[in-house]
This record gives sequence, structure tokens and C-alpha cells, in this order.
Amino acid sequence: MSAARLSPHPHQRPRATDYLIASKRCELRNLERFLQMGKLVLSIGNLIHELQRERGASNVFLGSGGRRFSEELVEMIDSSLRQQDAFEHELMEIQGELTQDPASTSLLNSLAAALHGLESLPAIRQQIRHQSISAEAAIDAYIERIRHLLTVVFEAAETVVDPTIAGMMVAMVNLMQGKEMAGQERAAGSLGFSRGHFDHALSQRIMHLIDAQERAFPVFERFADEEMLALWKQHNREDFWQELKYLRGLACSVGRYRELDTDLADQWFDLMTRRIDELKNIECLLEEHFHRRCIGRYTEARNALTHEQNLMESLDDSGHSPDPVLVVCSSENGGDTSQYRSDGVGRKLGRSVFDLVQQQALRLDQLSGELRIAREALDDRRTLEKAVLLLMKHQQISDDEAHKQLRKVAMDQGRKLTEVARSVLEMTDLLR
Amino acid sequence: MSAARLSPHPHQRPRATDYLIASKRCELRNLERFLQMGKLVLSIGNLIHELQRERGASNVFLGSGGRRFSEELVEMIDSSLRQQDAFEHELMEIQGELTQDPASTSLLNSLAAALHGLESLPAIRQQIRHQSISAEAAIDAYIERIRHLLTVVFEAAETVVDPTIAGMMVAMVNLMQGKEMAGQERAAGSLGFSRGHFDHALSQRIMHLIDAQERAFPVFERFADEEMLALWKQHNREDFWQELKYLRGLACSVGRYRELDTDLADQWFDLMTRRIDELKNIECLLEEHFHRRCIGRYTEARNALTHEQNLMESLDDSGHSPDPVLVVCSSENGGDTSQYRSDGVGRKLGRSVFDLVQQQALRLDQLSGELRIAREALDDRRTLEKAVLLLMKHQQISDDEAHKQLRKVAMDQGRKLTEVARSVLEMTDLLR
Repeated sequence: MSAARLSPHPHQRPRATDYLIASKRCELRNLERFLQMGKLVLSIGNLIHELQRERGASNVFLGSGGRRFSEELVEMIDSSLRQQDAFEHELMEIQGELTQDPASTSLLNSLAAALHGLESLPAIRQQIRHQSISAEAAIDAYIERIRHLLTVVFEAAETVVDPTIAGMMVAMVNLMQGKEMAGQERAAGSLGFSRGHFDHALSQRIMHLIDAQERAFPVFERFADEEMLALWKQHNREDFWQELKYLRGLACSVGRYRELDTDLADQWFDLMTRRIDELKNIECLLEEHFHRRCIGRYTEARNALTHEQNLMESLDDSGHSPDPVLVVCSSENGGDTSQYRSDGVGRKLGRSVFDLVQQQALRLDQLSGELRIAREALDDRRTLEKAVLLLMKHQQISDDEAHKQLRKVAMDQGRKLTEVARSVLEMTDLLR
Repeated sequence: MSAARLSPHPHQRPRATDYLIASKRCELRNLERFLQMGKLVLSIGNLIHELQRERGASNVFLGSGGRRFSEELVEMIDSSLRQQDAFEHELMEIQGELTQDPASTSLLNSLAAALHGLESLPAIRQQIRHQSISAEAAIDAYIERIRHLLTVVFEAAETVVDPTIAGMMVAMVNLMQGKEMAGQERAAGSLGFSRGHFDHALSQRIMHLIDAQERAFPVFERFADEEMLALWKQHNREDFWQELKYLRGLACSVGRYRELDTDLADQWFDLMTRRIDELKNIECLLEEHFHRRCIGRYTEARNALTHEQNLMESLDDSGHSPDPVLVVCSSENGGDTSQYRSDGVGRKLGRSVFDLVQQQALRLDQLSGELRIAREALDDRRTLEKAVLLLMKHQQISDDEAHKQLRKVAMDQGRKLTEVARSVLEMTDLLR
């Protein structure tokens, strides 16, 4: 009914009930959108997963002067390309929605950055194959592209308006973020172990990456549900971590220059790959839960809408105009309305519409409150991005370079990256 | 070009440049939307203005037992109805946009409340004509309807994403809010003067309304431009205020029960009407400026878009793929890329796209910062609305009753309304 009423209609006046319905419809459309968004996020997660493997292998390849992982790399690139196709397919599915949504200005821009990175990936792969690029430059090229893909997920998370769904998105982005830090640790470690030694910078970087993981995963835990946490406990089991800690110890014991057995490269790569694959499984389960939750919330909201449409149609049919009633609503507390108290039906009718509008207002307000909690969990990353953008502006540098500068300061001063970012922002406020 | 590219297209991949354009388009659509929104706000301002006059006159009419303003009321109702038609026309113009925008869930609901109030206005007018409603109940009925209309403007202001425009919206809503408090003061005063005396409650209410105006107008001043402030100074001239202060004194000197000359009712009504009409003129000028600003920003943004489209097309035509360049972007800081430094053209090309994306990210981030400042100015009202909704929920009362309770506590304790609201929220957090 309301769709018709809400399409512009010269001879007809806008009605309260239609706008109430339209408000509910608006919520429904949002939930529909996040069903699609979930698929996009999953495809990004899969693409990132393949790029991470490719990055790790590329660095074993380059670090070993092309002796290791030559064939593996070819297969990995194939599956990366398959996942890129899947990502671009999901993007095509949702882009009509995205370009129509006034809220997606930033999301669209982050997609532009991500796509721009993917467009130039073939050239990088060629250079790796010809060993005409340094291992560090190759790592950085992959890191930058994956960071742009993660930014898309962060921007997507910030457009979620349903708090229960927003919470899961926050768990998701932090899991993906932590997983990427683990992926970078795998790549850095692969480089060192395949070379047979770690210099100071490389050890520092690995320690920094461990610290970054210990920032991201707790946020994931805070927003994850029981089933997720069970998997998480399992992932954090003893035996596995003893081996990991041993190898981390070798990688981080700065100052030693004795050569390491280069076979450790395979052990390290296998171990870290097992870890990252487990994180990937948790990621997939999380996406499943996210999908289920979206469908659940959508069904809920649609039933509520149907219920209220029926209610309001029955009210329309009752033939009573809500007029006398609203007087009761607006003045029964202190006003002289004795002459209306008798009108039971009319009163019920006016109350209903009135209450529905107020219930909706109340619900929307509570939602926005819970939503704030979920959004605050994304602030660390916002702080970091703001600091990066300010450095870019003040020093006329690329965002990759700005990220590097922040990482370096954090390493040199042994402080958390977000702390450094925060003080950069404070400094810049003073410089303004 | 990009519109075509961005319509789903099986055989074609999403391109970075198209998403960059889409992000700019998204901004453009937002600015277009606020041009329409400005018209809607103007029509709401006009409707509120007429309802305020009607409310004032109705209370002289009821307060004088039907002796005064009988004809005037008929004319005023006619012009109210004309403005209601204009408002509903503007609403019809924009409703397609609104119902498509995922961000307007709350706005649509506030429109439902506003329309619901207007639908029952004829019944109220009938009761006033038959003097079958108390003056207090009549005032409350108008107050509630006008509050719902103002809520629409507040909700609209919160959907603005362009900071310069958001600032003007903040000035606008606070001007309208202050003007409404002045309108309520006119109505309350008209009631007292036409009765010939003010009881304690009525005097308290007037003092409270003066306090509320002194909260709203400073926020308007903070966000108003020079031309606006000049008009504002003119409005606050001496002679006018001496007369107003004298009458306010009579109205607020609680405890005196000597009868007042009922002719003061006309003097009060004329004076307050002059004041409110001046506020209305400032409101109209503000709307003009708002409209001009929207058009200005829109033209700016469209030119920027055209410029970048041309730039990117010329880059396409250059036939250079951006591939080698991004390597330069991503690794020139620390990576071994000497073999690419020669590729000047390609480098310029990749840099351009890359820089455009980063410029857009930087701009969007700065905007969101400035926007926060404007939004914070809307917080007082948010606090109030949250407190009202919590009272409604905890006591199962109407929002009108909740507003009354807050007003009463503020009056009894001589505290600001927002202070009371804030402590209500704190209390409720404890009760949870």
C-alpha cells in the first residue's frame, strides 16, 4: 500500500502512517544492503588470504634467489586471480546500491584505492618472477594493496547502522586486521629465515607486528560470540604456540649474527601458514554468523513491518479519524478532555499510530546508542588513518610512506602505533 | 563515461577511476539533496510561523472568552492551511529521495510524527472555535505539533554531510528553536494579560521560556555569518527591549494578584508579534544564504568532478597503463625501483590517479572533522530527546508528558532544561 502512496502523487497528501512505514522500509533496505555487503567482505577476505600466501611465498622465492617456491608461486597467483574475479563480481552486484547511497562517499573512494592497487599487481608479479624487485619492495607492494582492501572493510563496517550487525563487523575487521599482521609476520620471517639471518630492522619489524596482533585480536574477542570464542581458544592451544614462540625467539633475538639453518624457512612458513589458515577458518565462520544474523534481523524487521501495516490498515478500515484522539494524547495530562474519554475506539486508534511513531523513535535512539559502542571500537584505526592523512598533507608524502614513518617511530620509541598516531594528531593541532 | 561503466556490466571489470568518480558523484548527490532539503525546511519554517500566530491568537480568543480575535483567527487559519499545503508539496517533491536514502530512517519517522499532528489539527481548531477546550490544552496541542515540525528540521540537519552547509543548518535550527520559545512566550503572555493576571505556574513558564531562548540564540550567533549577525544586532536594539522588559516584568512578578489592564494583551501581542516577525525575516534571509551556499558548493563540486573526469580521460588516452608507476608509488621510499624512475609519463599517470584518490580521502577526512563540530552543537537537543524517550519508556507516558515533567523539574529547581535532561540520563544509566 505505502509504496504506491509514497510515489509522488499530485492529488494526494502525505500521510503520517505512510511515513512511519517508509521509516521501517528504510531500515529493511539497510539490512538488505548489509547482506550484500557481507558477501563483498567475504570475497575481500578470501582475496586478502590468497594475496597473503602469495606475499609469503614471493619472499621465500626472492629471499632464496629464486631457488624455492617457484612452482608454488604460479599456483598461488592463479588462485589469487580467481579470488580477485570473485571480489569484482560481488562488487558489480552491489555497486548499483553503493553509488546510490549518499553515505558511501568514503567507501567508494576506498574501493577506488583498492582497485587501483589490484590493477598494478600484474606488473609487480612480473618483477618478482624476474627477480627485478627487492624483497622489501615486493613485501611493501603487497602490504599496501592488502591495507587498501582492509580499508574497504573498515569503511563498510562504519556504514552499518544496525548495532548487532555492527558488532559482528567490528569483530570481523579486527580479526582480518590481526590476521594481516600475522601474514606480514610470516612474510618478514620467511625473508629472514630463507636468508639465514635477521638484521636489527627485520627483528624490530617482527616485534612490532606481534604487538599489532596483540592489539587487534582482543577487540575481536570483545565482539565475538561464544562459538567464535570456542574456536579462538582452540586456536590458542599450547603445543602450537611453543613451536611458534621458539621460532619467534630466533627471529627477534637481535644482535646475534650467527647464520640460521635456512631449512627453518619451510618450518616457519608451514607453521605460520597453519596459524593463518586457522584464522581464515574463524573468519569464514564469522562471515557465516554475520550472514545468518543479517537474515534474522531482516526477517524480524519485515515481520514487524507487515504487522504494523496490517494494524494500520485495520485502523483505516475502522473509519475513525484519529483526530479526537490526538487531543487525548496531547492534552490528557492537564487538559480538559473529559468529553473525549468515552471515545474508546477512536482513542485506541490514535494511540496506536502515535505509539508506533514513538516506539520507532525510541528504538532508533536506543540503536544509535548501542551503535556508538561498536563504532568506538573502530576509533583506533580512525586515529591511525587521520595521523597518516595529516603526515601526507604536511610532508607531501604517499600514505604508504606516512604509514612507514609512523611504524618507524613506534619501533624506535617502543610505543604502540596508535599512541604515536595520537601524539601526531595532538602535535598537528598545535601546528595549525 | 563512468555512469555507463558503473551500471552492472557482466563483461567488464570495475575500475579504480570509475569508483573515484562515483565517490565524487556521491558528494554531488548529497549537495543536490540539501538544496531540496533547504526548500522543505523553509516551508516548515513558514508553517511553524503561521501556527505560532494561530496559537497566540487562539489563546487571546480563549482567554477573553471569545471576545477578542474572533475574525483574525479565521484569517490566520487560512494562511496556516496555505502553508501546510506548501509544506506538503515540498515534501512530495523530496519524498522519493528521502525514502531511498538509507540515512533517513529517523527523519522519516519524525515526518510521520509531524504529519500525524497536522492531521488532527482541524479537530483542535473546532474545539477552540466552540471554546470546548481549555486554553492550556490548546496551547499544549500547538506546542506539541510545532515541536514535531522542529524535530524534522533537527533530524534533517543531522543528515547534512557538508560541514559548511551543516553549520548553516545548525544556525537555522537554533534560530527556529529560539523563535518557537519566543512564540510560546507570546502565547503564555497573551493568556495571562487577556485574563488580567498571571498565576505562579504561568509566570514560571514565561521565565523558563526566556531561559530557553537565551540558550538557543547564542548557538545561532556562533554559526551565523556577518550579514545575519548585523540583522541580529538590529533586532536587539534598545527601545524595543525596554518595552518588552517592562511587560515581561509584569508577567513574571510572581505573587502579585492585583488585576492587570487587559488592554495590555494587545500591546503584548503586537510587541511579541513584531519581535517574532523580525526573527522570521532573519530566518528567511538565512534560508536564502543556505540556498546560495548549496548552489555554490554544488557548482564547485561539479567543476571538480568535470576537471577530474577530463584529467582521467586524458590519462586513459595516453595509452600508458598505470602499472609500472604504482610500483614507484608503493616502493620508491626504500624499494629498489631505479629501473622505473625513467618512465616519466607512466609515473605522472599513476601518480595522478593515486593522488586524486588520496586527495579525496584527505578532503573527506577533514570534512568529517569540521562536521563533528557542527554536529556537537546539536547535542543539547539530542540529550533532551534521549531523556524524553527514557522517561516515556520508564513511566509509559507520552512524549508531551515527558517534556512537561522535564520542564517542571527545571522550573522547580531553577536549573537549565538540558542540565535536568543530562542528570535524568545519568540516573537512568544507574537504574539499568
